[in-house]
Amino acid sequence: MSLLQETLAKIQGLDQEAIAACQERLDNLTKPPGSLGVLEDIAKKLAGITGNPRPTLGAKTIVVMAGDHGVVAEGVSAFPQEVTPQMVYNFINQGAAINVLSNHVGARVVVVDVGVAAEVSHPQLISKKVKLGTDNMVKGPAMSVEEAIRAIEVGIEVANQEVAAGATLLGTGDMGIGNTTPSSAIFAACSSISLDDLVGRGTGVNDEGLALKKKAIATALKVNKPNSEDGIDLVSKVGGLEIAAIAGLIIGAAANRVPVVIDGFIAGAGALVAARLSRESVNYMIPSHVSAEPGHKLALELLGLKPMLFMDMRLGEGTGAALAISLVEAATKIVNEMATFADAGVAGAL
Amino acid sequence: MSLLQETLAKIQGLDQEAIAACQERLDNLTKPPGSLGVLEDIAKKLAGITGNPRPTLGAKTIVVMAGDHGVVAEGVSAFPQEVTPQMVYNFINQGAAINVLSNHVGARVVVVDVGVAAEVSHPQLISKKVKLGTDNMVKGPAMSVEEAIRAIEVGIEVANQEVAAGATLLGTGDMGIGNTTPSSAIFAACSSISLDDLVGRGTGVNDEGLALKKKAIATALKVNKPNSEDGIDLVSKVGGLEIAAIAGLIIGAAANRVPVVIDGFIAGAGALVAARLSRESVNYMIPSHVSAEPGHKLALELLGLKPMLFMDMRLGEGTGAALAISLVEAATKIVNEMATFADAGVAGAL
Repeated sequence: MSLLQETLAKIQGLDQEAIAACQERLDNLTKPPGSLGVLEDIAKKLAGITGNPRPTLGAKTIVVMAGDHGVVAEGVSAFPQEVTPQMVYNFINQGAAINVLSNHVGARVVVVDVGVAAEVSHPQLISKKVKLGTDNMVKGPAMSVEEAIRAIEVGIEVANQEVAAGATLLGTGDMGIGNTTPSSAIFAACSSISLDDLVGRGTGVNDEGLALKKKAIATALKVNKPNSEDGIDLVSKVGGLEIAAIAGLIIGAAANRVPVVIDGFIAGAGALVAARLSRESVNYMIPSHVSAEPGHKLALELLGLKPMLFMDMRLGEGTGAALAISLVEAATKIVNEMATFADAGVAGAL
Repeated sequence: MSLLQETLAKIQGLDQEAIAACQERLDNLTKPPGSLGVLEDIAKKLAGITGNPRPTLGAKTIVVMAGDHGVVAEGVSAFPQEVTPQMVYNFINQGAAINVLSNHVGARVVVVDVGVAAEVSHPQLISKKVKLGTDNMVKGPAMSVEEAIRAIEVGIEVANQEVAAGATLLGTGDMGIGNTTPSSAIFAACSSISLDDLVGRGTGVNDEGLALKKKAIATALKVNKPNSEDGIDLVSKVGGLEIAAIAGLIIGAAANRVPVVIDGFIAGAGALVAARLSRESVNYMIPSHVSAEPGHKLALELLGLKPMLFMDMRLGEGTGAALAISLVEAATKIVNEMATFADAGVAGAL
């Protein structure tokens, strides 16, 4: 059995008993029942994932998957492709937004080269390059089925490694100039959302670039005819190496019964691929923000996920996931640190 | 000149030079311009408030204003009035949600009795009781003009005291059984939002209680005819002591050039009163979450504030403000800790 098949076979449902016990505790805390809203939902989800009715968090890791995209030849991005490896070094040197925000919430950043279109190397970089960037999906599949499976397995391997090293929560991050284009293609393939409603300016493409981006997506979908029910077909034809690796990271987290915070638009595409590989994996996902990309909120609805943060962010890297980690940690503290009505001598509802 | 007049006279506009310098720095950081959205807006607002183009935060205080409401006699709340003093002691004993969430974000909680309808005393409680709860606004004004001014001045005094003790950011909190009722009345008086769109279940009133609540608000507005342009008339006739004190806290923060994070529905009503006293004070407000109360989002629009957190919370106490403090702190770290394009050797936009 391949690593992918093995991992998919390991994913189980949530622990309903732990969820019920967590609910009971939440209802005894000094607050009106349910009044902490999504914080209570997160606490219950963590209980179900970990089997602990009073879940806690230890080490947290945000994994930034880096890969390039042949489709940039169509003029879909505001930044040149050399920015991908430059930003990889910036992550390693602690200079990027994801470093600052991860430090802020006490998470470690791990950077993985799964498909940067340049040689990059550093002792702190996890080098698992599958390919020097995808092929141009306007002309044919972005990658072969074998390459897609390998990229997914890179994500699984990193999840396994991080969990073995003590991570109790993973967050998804991405770097890849042009990667809102394949992400939009994945969302478009899986929904009836029009390209006008779905496709945004990414890092800030102008009107001409936006038109080229929509045209490239429409052509890629026509040329490749991805099967929207088949995660591997989808990500190999119109996806990206880092998107496949994000899907793998999610699958790997679920197989290890570890929650995974989903960042923004690119992570959402990875999450959709993961959901096609394992519907159950969705129960291990914690959404974070809704990005400034117009289709993101609709895309999250395809997964039944409701974002918590509305910050008009559109940077990627895992920045939205990092901010959400503070909220997830807050949820665990609510379950464990609040007084009950009995402890505090507070009267219940009339 | 009274403390209120003195304080209002001190409130000045934001420092536009510091905002421009902060914008310039943000545009040089290794990210597409504007891609951190609201985090960048917050950084600029803090620059304008403090005059520092690279703002930082030190000590942070959430002030929980506690007061009771004569209108509970109309059956508008799911909890009995004795819960207000019980929760005051719970705050002091560190058992409530606001304690847990404030600890989580490194903020101190200060509890102020501005109008609890019972004797409460504790060395750690700030006792500034104006009145043993408001009068029933269905029968006449909730309090006299003098009492309203005194309650606002309580907020100013606490702001001055906290800033003198080193606070660099304040957050608003509230406790008062029944206080979504006067808050709804304030919003209704200042807008054309219908009571059906505006009034929610607060801590969880049933259908009968919801009907009684709407009826009480409609009657109070008819009996008192508050002048929606006059903050003092508004808060004295259909407001609350803790709502007036929150307005005072905001005014006091603005006069001290300290940012103030606005919690949820009750804080929004206090913020609206503050805005009527000083339009400029709005520039010192940082919104946090939108609560589960149906009218909250519309109410925030009256102030031109856009919430960041969509958590379906409806607890009050300052819990939404506490969560938002982590985001405000993140914004300051972005300005100060990220590498510039030049530092990191990263290419700019094409």
